Amino acid sequence: MEELLASYIKSKISITEEELNIILSHFRPMKLKKNELLLANGQSSQRTFFVVKGCLRIFFINEEGQDSTRYFAFENQFATALVSFITSEPSDEFIQAVEDSEVYYITHSSFYHLLDEIPQWEKFYRKYLEMAYVNNTRRLMSFLVQDALEKYRQLLDENPIIVRRLSNKMVASYLNISQETLSRLKSKL
Amino acid sequence: MEELLASYIKSKISITEEELNIILSHFRPMKLKKNELLLANGQSSQRTFFVVKGCLRIFFINEEGQDSTRYFAFENQFATALVSFITSEPSDEFIQAVEDSEVYYITHSSFYHLLDEIPQWEKFYRKYLEMAYVNNTRRLMSFLVQDALEKYRQLLDENPIIVRRLSNKMVASYLNISQETLSRLKSKL
Repeated sequence: MEELLASYIKSKISITEEELNIILSHFRPMKLKKNELLLANGQSSQRTFFVVKGCLRIFFINEEGQDSTRYFAFENQFATALVSFITSEPSDEFIQAVEDSEVYYITHSSFYHLLDEIPQWEKFYRKYLEMAYVNNTRRLMSFLVQDALEKYRQLLDENPIIVRRLSNKMVASYLNISQETLSRLKSKL
Repeated sequence: MEELLASYIKSKISITEEELNIILSHFRPMKLKKNELLLANGQSSQRTFFVVKGCLRIFFINEEGQDSTRYFAFENQFATALVSFITSEPSDEFIQAVEDSEVYYITHSSFYHLLDEIPQWEKFYRKYLEMAYVNNTRRLMSFLVQDALEKYRQLLDENPIIVRRLSNKMVASYLNISQETLSRLKSKL
């Protein structure tokens, strides 16, 4: 279990075994039931999660009052409500387990403590932020510039696991469309 | 001129004079005419800009084919088409001078070279990315969850310089609404 996290970190940065052990010592395991909420909006996001098994989703409530999923994290991915994690302000986003899941988490204070203690952790976080910036901007821009059909085609192309593994309700929430619209799209393709 | 850039960097990180001089040696000054394009979509974003005088804007073409401004950088702010700067892929965004402007720029290769050479530059960039992530996510989320009036009120509250200093056309583009809608909003308040 912990090995998945260790090899993920080692794949991103050059690091000694000693540094790696210090980093790992700040992570805690946690088991989650399907639908369990890890963060509600209005709370401050004080933990970052690494998924070992299952799936987490980050979502917000859109203009029509429906939930809209910004990000699914499957095995071997990190996730948090990052704006709130950075600012410590109340989150606009929720974090929820979509399946029974096993995760590791690190608290905000441990995370920032490691930035001062281990320079390579600074590099790890920088790469994490770069990836988060790119993914998140592309995601939110796709809401603004693509119609539903384009979004669905891109999803099938780039993230088929979401369609393969999750319910129609989750897929619709990821595309920011209703389940009825999703059904119509599916019949068109 | 260069002092503005130097004090900006010193306000973000602890750094020796020697390190600061190395960093500054990688920046080049540049004068821009109003409306001049620094990057068109489809090009790779190979420079990051620091505004000494004037204003740059980062914009994209929205679903209706109109330009929509994601970010205005005034004096003492950095700006680039960051997704493309990170990935080196063709940019979805344009960079344009909104006023006659004076900027410093650093190339992508110098920027990443400094990350290896000067550990504090890694910290500088990490903080830059944190701020960019927060600003950009809030911006794009506001497109998705706020109506035009809410967006305009928030703009007056948080970024009045945009309304004070720029044309209605620019303000409308920042709110992702037409100039006619903006006029109606103004008459309501």
